Formats: sequence, structure tokens, C-alpha cells
Amino acid sequence: MAGEDCIFCRIRDGKLTGDVVLDTEDVFVLRDIHPQAPTHLLIIPKEHVATVSDLSGDWLGLMGRLTDVANEAAKIFGVAQSGYRLVINSGPDSGNEVAHLHVHLLAGKRLGGLG
Amino acid sequence: MAGEDCIFCRIRDGKLTGDVVLDTEDVFVLRDIHPQAPTHLLIIPKEHVATVSDLSGDWLGLMGRLTDVANEAAKIFGVAQSGYRLVINSGPDSGNEVAHLHVHLLAGKRLGGLG
Repeated sequence: MAGEDCIFCRIRDGKLTGDVVLDTEDVFVLRDIHPQAPTHLLIIPKEHVATVSDLSGDWLGLMGRLTDVANEAAKIFGVAQSGYRLVINSGPDSGNEVAHLHVHLLAGKRLGGLG
Repeated sequence: MAGEDCIFCRIRDGKLTGDVVLDTEDVFVLRDIHPQAPTHLLIIPKEHVATVSDLSGDWLGLMGRLTDVANEAAKIFGVAQSGYRLVINSGPDSGNEVAHLHVHLLAGKRLGGLG
């Protein structure tokens, strides 16, 4: 599922409106439309990759890029010191809803259990 | 805080017992002693890095390594298809308890909210 069928690909291509708060050459950052914390961002590679479990070989470098942008977003949103949680869901048990790899960044309150 | 003061460095060095389920040259995997899901593992770099927010430049490659080992652990524990969640906590609001970078892998049930 990519292109027309993928919500993140459509936002990337400007065919669907998303609250993009940061845009780089290869990664963009959206506000989550159903926030689970005062700050809830999604760090998304522009390249369509379905899930973290698909990453191997050279593609694993993408995790460094996503982490770098997540750390940058944490600074921009003023939560780098207070703390933040990064979450990646993969597969049905995880609650993943969009089959385009994304990292959740949650912050702005004392976060609870992991799942 | 590293070496004698760090619980993960002490487990790495064999000075403290931990339930190590996977051991590679640069990354090891422990069972969490307070599991929040039927499968709850910690993917830990052997090198002492305090937090994800410290990663920049070449160090970001570590995220690819941790992800690769997490994906391998998901296969070994039979949760690659059913699904899993990766979580990295940083700073006080996240609930992080050990100041040595680690990735939580949670699986084995329908996981709930993100925090």
C-alpha cells in the first residue's frame, strides 16, 4: 500500500491536508490528529516504507535519520529537557493504524505505562 | 553515570545477573524484570550512551543496530507477525529509569495507549 492508498504519502504529496510542523528533504513531522499527550508528533520518512520490521541492510540508516529529526523536534517543542517518549508500532498487536513507517513522539506530561 | 554506577554496564560486565536472551558484539537483549506485556525485552547497546537525545552524527547509526537486533528478537520470540511495539524513553516525563540507552520491545497481547 503506497501512493494513493497511503494517508502519509498523500499528505507528503500535498493531496491531503496534514498539520506539518517540520519538513526536511527526507523526513517530515506531523501533529497526531488524536493526540495522546500534550505534545504528540509523528516523525515520518518521505519514502514509503511499510513497517519497521521491513528495515534491513542500508535501510536501517533511516532509523538514525528519524531519531535525529525526533531529537530536533523535541528541542523545537521545548520538551528535550522535560522528557519525551519515542514509539514505533508494527503489526496488529501494536495498534498500528497506518502502514507507512512513523515514529510517535509523546511529551508534555508524566507519561504512563508502555502498553 | 557509567561503569560501576550503571546497572546495564554491570550486567554487560557480568558483575550483576540479568536474564540475557540475546548477545551480539555490540548489543545485548534482556528480559525486563517488571514486564508490562507477555514479551517485554530491553535492547541495549554495550557502549554506555546515556540517552537517545545524546545521539548525533555517527552515533545515530546505533539506532539502526538496535532496530536490527529488535527485529531479530521479534522473530526469535515469535511476535514478528502478531506485532510488537518499540519504545525509547528519554528524560523525567518519559518514566525512564536507567540512564543507559535502551529500546523496550513489547508484544504478546493487544497493546493499549502510548502513554
